[in-house]
Amino acid sequence: MKISDYNKKAEDYRHKLNAHISKLLLNLKPDSLYNPIRYFMNSGGKRIRPILLIASAGASNNFKTGQVINQAIAMELLHNFTLIHDDIMDHADLRHGHKTLHTKYDVNIAILCGDNLLAMAFKSLNKNLKFNINDVLNTFSESVITVCEGQSLDKEFENSNNIKMSDYLDMIYRKTAAMISASCKIGALSSNAPAKIIRPLSEFGRYFGMAFQIQDDLLDMEGDNPKFGKTHGSDLIEGKKTFLLLSALQKARGRDLEQLTKLVENKGIMPGAVKKHFEIYRRLNVDFMARETSINYINKALSQLNYLPDSMHKEFLIQFSNQILNRTH
Amino acid sequence: MKISDYNKKAEDYRHKLNAHISKLLLNLKPDSLYNPIRYFMNSGGKRIRPILLIASAGASNNFKTGQVINQAIAMELLHNFTLIHDDIMDHADLRHGHKTLHTKYDVNIAILCGDNLLAMAFKSLNKNLKFNINDVLNTFSESVITVCEGQSLDKEFENSNNIKMSDYLDMIYRKTAAMISASCKIGALSSNAPAKIIRPLSEFGRYFGMAFQIQDDLLDMEGDNPKFGKTHGSDLIEGKKTFLLLSALQKARGRDLEQLTKLVENKGIMPGAVKKHFEIYRRLNVDFMARETSINYINKALSQLNYLPDSMHKEFLIQFSNQILNRTH
Repeated sequence: MKISDYNKKAEDYRHKLNAHISKLLLNLKPDSLYNPIRYFMNSGGKRIRPILLIASAGASNNFKTGQVINQAIAMELLHNFTLIHDDIMDHADLRHGHKTLHTKYDVNIAILCGDNLLAMAFKSLNKNLKFNINDVLNTFSESVITVCEGQSLDKEFENSNNIKMSDYLDMIYRKTAAMISASCKIGALSSNAPAKIIRPLSEFGRYFGMAFQIQDDLLDMEGDNPKFGKTHGSDLIEGKKTFLLLSALQKARGRDLEQLTKLVENKGIMPGAVKKHFEIYRRLNVDFMARETSINYINKALSQLNYLPDSMHKEFLIQFSNQILNRTH
Repeated sequence: MKISDYNKKAEDYRHKLNAHISKLLLNLKPDSLYNPIRYFMNSGGKRIRPILLIASAGASNNFKTGQVINQAIAMELLHNFTLIHDDIMDHADLRHGHKTLHTKYDVNIAILCGDNLLAMAFKSLNKNLKFNINDVLNTFSESVITVCEGQSLDKEFENSNNIKMSDYLDMIYRKTAAMISASCKIGALSSNAPAKIIRPLSEFGRYFGMAFQIQDDLLDMEGDNPKFGKTHGSDLIEGKKTFLLLSALQKARGRDLEQLTKLVENKGIMPGAVKKHFEIYRRLNVDFMARETSINYINKALSQLNYLPDSMHKEFLIQFSNQILNRTH
């Protein structure tokens, strides 16, 4: 698939999804509940999970977008529920360069909007669902439970000074990769895919999700980009236990180790110290390690696609995976 | 059904439900997520919704408790999700005489525990569900959406001085009665009830729920009962727009009206003024009106049961409805 064809296809998916979301939210009352939801759902977002679901349904059984659009929307509503509640818990002010929901409105409204999006997600999931109903619902609710467990572990990590790389990988599996894996699996299940490709698509999503999160950690080292509301070094400032920090703690010796240990003990650093800490990261080569690990996960993801018959949709999934490695937001 | 048989049956239901809930939550990890959930789920609760679901399934198609236990548990998990998040939004410190979750732990944990309970509820709903799967899931997710809309309206009411009785009745339908109605309807649907009794059971639950909420408003006038963590006059102190207050505002004239208008404008009163305001309520007879309205709803509920064949379960539902009028907590 040519990159121009891929871009066109991705844009087409996003356009259809956004139109469907706008229509779904139109005219719902009361405004005190749905205006904030409309605001948040229209504040950008890459629609990665629903696109993966649609492309998986296409690659599984040549399903058209319209045949799984409600399940795809369910995944996006679920994702936005997690963002809204995570933003409250993380005291985040910005997302995609827009105010977070609890900042623009208040915490109560943000709790309620998240709750309602989760209920709407289940309703949408069930709409026009014709195949493997029981499996689809179980996969979906299990993925929500797994995300909650992941978020809980992430919060535990904030107060622990002894997080191992294996703990981190388990946490990001739960918090990020499980839901991406569920998107692909539900795409397969709801399009009545042959049994033998359900697991490969689910595994494809899991590896894709792991790469996606590690790339996210790497983005902290990129330059400021106010467009996306991501502050250079914000993970460092908050002392987040990212792939970079945990790798650096493993490799560092002497003064570098002292410095990083202090960062962990103080639960972060001052913004002025960001540059110095990134120098440690570069000296220890942990950015390179993260990049390598991310590429490794994408290769594992791609190898799962060998179980699928050749198709335009499979080509799309290959391109989509490679794009993750180039993502800048 | 003799009252002693009724009490034994109700106790038996509660015992089975509590045992099932304890087993469901046993050994789940991480503790940072599941310890608070175990604490809250074991802090009491009357298990009204799951009992209604089980009894409805019995009255519909002679189903045994075990055949719909997972759907009943789903309803109780859902109910507890709403309590945990409502307590955050209402800044409530106590529930059933125990600390609320965000007070015992913190707001973040309470948000996450509620989210997880909602996901667990959907998972349980889907377990061993054999009949009318699509309808059951729709009824369940619609009821969650309706509850969120009801809570949103309830919060709107806090900042509005012009709430009509019809607004109030619509709000309590959404916030309380819809989920009780869904419990009865899901009991009918999941036990494969004849089509002609699904609506009567759903309506029975709606009327039951309306009576239940108005009785709850009346309980504010009862004496202090620290066992249940309900403070005498707490609705008055917080200026809540209850059935009592809205009825009193309609009927009051002269100095009484002035006093009540001031209460609304100030969003509540000092604890020392509770007695005086209850005297106004009694003078205007609004406690009697609330009682009458509640009895009227129960009678409407009971008349729906005429569509059901006679059975021990139907007898139980009749007794259960009458007990609501005598409830003290």
